[in-house]
Amino acid sequence: MVIILRDNPDQKQIDSLVSWLKEKNLDVHIIKGADQTIIGLIGDTSKIDMDSIKTMEIVEDVKRIQEPYKNVNRKFHPDDTIVDIAPGIRIGGGNFQVMAGPCSVEGSAQVLSIARAVKKAGADILRGGAFKPRTSPYAFQGLGAEGLEILKAAKREIGMPIVSEIMDISKLPLFEDVDIIQVGARNMQNFELLKELGRTRKPILLKRGLSSTIQELLMSAEYIMAGGNSQIILCERGIRTFETATRNTLDISAVPVLKELSHLPVIVDPSHGTGNARLVKPMAMAAVAAGADGLIIEVHNDPVHALCDGAQSLTLEAFGDLMAQVNKILPFAYKR
Amino acid sequence: MVIILRDNPDQKQIDSLVSWLKEKNLDVHIIKGADQTIIGLIGDTSKIDMDSIKTMEIVEDVKRIQEPYKNVNRKFHPDDTIVDIAPGIRIGGGNFQVMAGPCSVEGSAQVLSIARAVKKAGADILRGGAFKPRTSPYAFQGLGAEGLEILKAAKREIGMPIVSEIMDISKLPLFEDVDIIQVGARNMQNFELLKELGRTRKPILLKRGLSSTIQELLMSAEYIMAGGNSQIILCERGIRTFETATRNTLDISAVPVLKELSHLPVIVDPSHGTGNARLVKPMAMAAVAAGADGLIIEVHNDPVHALCDGAQSLTLEAFGDLMAQVNKILPFAYKR
Amino acid sequence: MVIILRDNPDQKQIDSLVSWLKEKNLDVHIIKGADQTIIGLIGDTSKIDMDSIKTMEIVEDVKRIQEPYKNVNRKFHPDDTIVDIAPGIRIGGGNFQVMAGPCSVEGSAQVLSIARAVKKAGADILRGGAFKPRTSPYAFQGLGAEGLEILKAAKREIGMPIVSEIMDISKLPLFEDVDIIQVGARNMQNFELLKELGRTRKPILLKRGLSSTIQELLMSAEYIMAGGNSQIILCERGIRTFETATRNTLDISAVPVLKELSHLPVIVDPSHGTGNARLVKPMAMAAVAAGADGLIIEVHNDPVHALCDGAQSLTLEAFGDLMAQVNKILPFAYKR
Amino acid sequence: MVIILRDNPDQKQIDSLVSWLKEKNLDVHIIKGADQTIIGLIGDTSKIDMDSIKTMEIVEDVKRIQEPYKNVNRKFHPDDTIVDIAPGIRIGGGNFQVMAGPCSVEGSAQVLSIARAVKKAGADILRGGAFKPRTSPYAFQGLGAEGLEILKAAKREIGMPIVSEIMDISKLPLFEDVDIIQVGARNMQNFELLKELGRTRKPILLKRGLSSTIQELLMSAEYIMAGGNSQIILCERGIRTFETATRNTLDISAVPVLKELSHLPVIVDPSHGTGNARLVKPMAMAAVAAGADGLIIEVHNDPVHALCDGAQSLTLEAFGDLMAQVNKILPFAYKR
Repeated sequence: MVIILRDNPDQKQIDSLVSWLKEKNLDVHIIKGADQTIIGLIGDTSKIDMDSIKTMEIVEDVKRIQEPYKNVNRKFHPDDTIVDIAPGIRIGGGNFQVMAGPCSVEGSAQVLSIARAVKKAGADILRGGAFKPRTSPYAFQGLGAEGLEILKAAKREIGMPIVSEIMDISKLPLFEDVDIIQVGARNMQNFELLKELGRTRKPILLKRGLSSTIQELLMSAEYIMAGGNSQIILCERGIRTFETATRNTLDISAVPVLKELSHLPVIVDPSHGTGNARLVKPMAMAAVAAGADGLIIEVHNDPVHALCDGAQSLTLEAFGDLMAQVNKILPFAYKR
Repeated sequence: MVIILRDNPDQKQIDSLVSWLKEKNLDVHIIKGADQTIIGLIGDTSKIDMDSIKTMEIVEDVKRIQEPYKNVNRKFHPDDTIVDIAPGIRIGGGNFQVMAGPCSVEGSAQVLSIARAVKKAGADILRGGAFKPRTSPYAFQGLGAEGLEILKAAKREIGMPIVSEIMDISKLPLFEDVDIIQVGARNMQNFELLKELGRTRKPILLKRGLSSTIQELLMSAEYIMAGGNSQIILCERGIRTFETATRNTLDISAVPVLKELSHLPVIVDPSHGTGNARLVKPMAMAAVAAGADGLIIEVHNDPVHALCDGAQSLTLEAFGDLMAQVNKILPFAYKR
Repeated sequence: MVIILRDNPDQKQIDSLVSWLKEKNLDVHIIKGADQTIIGLIGDTSKIDMDSIKTMEIVEDVKRIQEPYKNVNRKFHPDDTIVDIAPGIRIGGGNFQVMAGPCSVEGSAQVLSIARAVKKAGADILRGGAFKPRTSPYAFQGLGAEGLEILKAAKREIGMPIVSEIMDISKLPLFEDVDIIQVGARNMQNFELLKELGRTRKPILLKRGLSSTIQELLMSAEYIMAGGNSQIILCERGIRTFETATRNTLDISAVPVLKELSHLPVIVDPSHGTGNARLVKPMAMAAVAAGADGLIIEVHNDPVHALCDGAQSLTLEAFGDLMAQVNKILPFAYKR
Repeated sequence: MVIILRDNPDQKQIDSLVSWLKEKNLDVHIIKGADQTIIGLIGDTSKIDMDSIKTMEIVEDVKRIQEPYKNVNRKFHPDDTIVDIAPGIRIGGGNFQVMAGPCSVEGSAQVLSIARAVKKAGADILRGGAFKPRTSPYAFQGLGAEGLEILKAAKREIGMPIVSEIMDISKLPLFEDVDIIQVGARNMQNFELLKELGRTRKPILLKRGLSSTIQELLMSAEYIMAGGNSQIILCERGIRTFETATRNTLDISAVPVLKELSHLPVIVDPSHGTGNARLVKPMAMAAVAAGADGLIIEVHNDPVHALCDGAQSLTLEAFGDLMAQVNKILPFAYKR
């Protein structure tokens, strides 16, 4: 951490700041120049509150030079984390996975037919929304617990692990047979939920918030890992920008950045990231080329009559086509 | 709602779409031009899923022309909502209120001394954080239930109503004696929490999410009102932009926009909105001039040693000075 | 400047970097910790290219701790700059000015009637667009040189100084009798134009670019001042964000931030900043309360038939009303 | 275009609006519902000023349903435009090109050695900056005319066509032997420059502005095409968002969106788009996978000592490696 002092700082105040910093077991280095004095701090500054220091009269600015996350940091854990989802189904460390299925679970027949089709096309994990976060209280909110039961039945029948979104801690017991628990973009900073998931040993799919920085995503993963659960899959799903031609701006560069900063696997959601079925395929291909460890894609047997987000769902045929193309690119992807 | 068709649409598909729309009890008007066909829909389109229509082969785009919110809409409720907080303390409809206090509750003596000072300076409501949403799992997370008890004790002793943030449904029983329950920016789209608060009859302070549009804020308020609770105070607290000189960009224009679209009272948080104590006063003055119904401001007896967000907390003296200036502007504020 | 080195840096490379830095006449301080080494540089680092240093193998990051602007920096010029526009008409250092007039100059009668009305309401400077930057090549592009002549005639007849936008260096000779030359948001980083205006001694109204940071605005002002012209008025006019309820998000906090960082006067354009006539008055009031040195406002005698930007123009009556309200707030504004 | 009227509009005002619209040769369709009246307009609305209509008392909102661009619109020109750069070197319509070279031209030896290396690696077009737009007036501004001469000499010696940026109309004569004239992000809405380039018949490389929407980029291309020049290459180079881990957010989805909306070729600049050499390769691969028609990449023989933007320049070796990987992906790219 570096503290930049204002011009002509009071020496007593400097002394008081320095002794306060030394109490925190930090190495304190004062650099005095003709115009400017800066204080360099070496040691574990993760518990120092930058904001408090900023309020001091003699302080102009404070800059952190170390990342504020530890457990998820590749520096301290150079090897890729591999998340074990089910026997033979792993993600990260060279293992690539596609999760596919309907935005919302609408019924058993629907889920089974989509599951069989996506499995045939090469997806190994079934996604489906039972609890749906919807902007409007008047929109379909998902089948809830019944939806989860339908998914679990499909899992038993077809043998595909399942991923579904949790929206509230109180529903956690319902997710016992769910293989991957998804934390949605709107809950990325629901810290109480993150702490609770940190106490489980379940694989967690953590989606980046709509306006969250890469560092904040990693801090949210840190909440889970701080609880002892390192089975975390990060997911880029589009950020909010001024552009209106796409629902969000899918930040593909987050893939190589996250993989450099952290050891956790990173997947991409081109369905929510674009909000437009016609853009799902090219953006899935871009994600794979840039080195993503997987994809999560909305597929529907009848997008026109889907109860939610039909606009971004692929038909079964289009999904098969996407998988074929993705498999051609995969061997030549970045760092493969 | 207006549906714009692609060039040369298939007549059978048009017929099928039109009959589907008529089943929904909508007036359907087809306008055919040389180059383009559009379909105008009149009636209650709030339950029509735009996204599903967009996926149809013959459809190029769908545009909503009515607001998707009803209960919070000023069109259907022209008079200002007045929220009753405590005997003689109301907000909205010409009633202006200032909420002030520490970012975090740190102890009883701290809270009492700040409460007395802000009351003396003219604030009628005491704010204080017991449950704190912090980006880092290693940062101080608030005193929790104990913090709430300290606030309630201060309320009894000094006679000020209190406002504090809830982070999870399970903690709701602890908020029984809290006068205003705050939903923080990160929970603005925690829809399960909103639904639960809609079942209470408590005043709710709903903060705008960091990257939420004004319409999304109103939709979240609609969740609460749809449950039967209309005691809602909206709060602008800064949005995320590319600018880095301030922590967020305080969107003062949200005040007149929200007051035009909705009947709910609107307050502004210049402390979180700027992240910088030196900017709190000018931005508080701007908010008041633009017609805000109130302010919520962080004040600390010792900002340098505050356990969180010290950088943006005012000293007691600076807060007194702010109140004096705000009171001079208030009589000349917009629409007063 | 602070250079953060990667873990276990090569000592030879450190030596080579240090000797290169010393050649630049910088005080070099190496701080070695158990985990991390940082290099603190004291002296004039404005000519050091941070980007080049960042490419070095041993370097993890570089952070600048001094502002990159000098002439416009309040640190080196603590007193407010006062811009002299015409005899008795000054802006900055406590002098407040309102510039008002039509978006586009449409004809002599229009300009004269608006000019007389805004002057009567209290505006001392006449604005009017002759060269109009329009997104579409098919939109009205302004009357050009003829428009400037109409403005100049109004100036002579009514005795109001005028402000108008320049779009290309080649038109500079036409602006000789224009009192303030406006650089529009789209040209804020037209560096060739800025250099040329730095060679004049004319007052320049420099608008912030739609996605420009406050620091970039100051760097563009620095271009003009580096040429010897310090007669610069900064103008906040809204930035681009994800919000769609307003055309732009007017960043009122830019006013106190700019006035702290720089000695130049700062005005606000609530017309372009909101794109909506109904929001001009509350946002003008907010800007004044926050300490702006002036306003620039679009006024039209017939907004419905205005050839451009009618949506944000005030009627003459609404402008009179705005001026009355602004004058009530002005004495109580921030730092007045 | 659809005009949405306020509740209970005055019939006389409706009549007056309708007759005004009919004068513009538009088909006017009035749709009256119980709660709402809307007016549908069919015909060429590109010259109707939406903003003027919005100011009318009876009007609540106006929505455009047709794109405001014509010449660049794929609807009216379904076939891909192919830009002819030099004999045998074309871009678009299946022709893929890589432009590579130094950020700034620094000297003849530098340019020749880089040119030879990038040609050997497979780039067919040489890029190099002679006029450099720099945020700071104190930064190196490029060699100017001398830099262009060095590029032209390299073109003659090595036989590679060249691309370089123009910053001001007055320099146009110097670009006669430059094969592609680049309009930089900061000049994307320098409309005077665009008009002038529309009068030439030179290939133009038009970069997207930092905060420009895809529609605005197309409108700027429309300015050039309206002048008769259809030799335009569009370039995505990153947009400004809240994310700070990358200099800009490279909007890869702009590639498929632009190619759907327009017939013009689209290339991507991963060097400026990320600002970080380590991200250039994965993002180049992503761009190619998503269907880009080409890449423009900064390469330097000695990035550490480059006079500008060294941080994002690849070494010659890294560029060779990138080309090898890109060529593996190219045959499997989207729509290839």
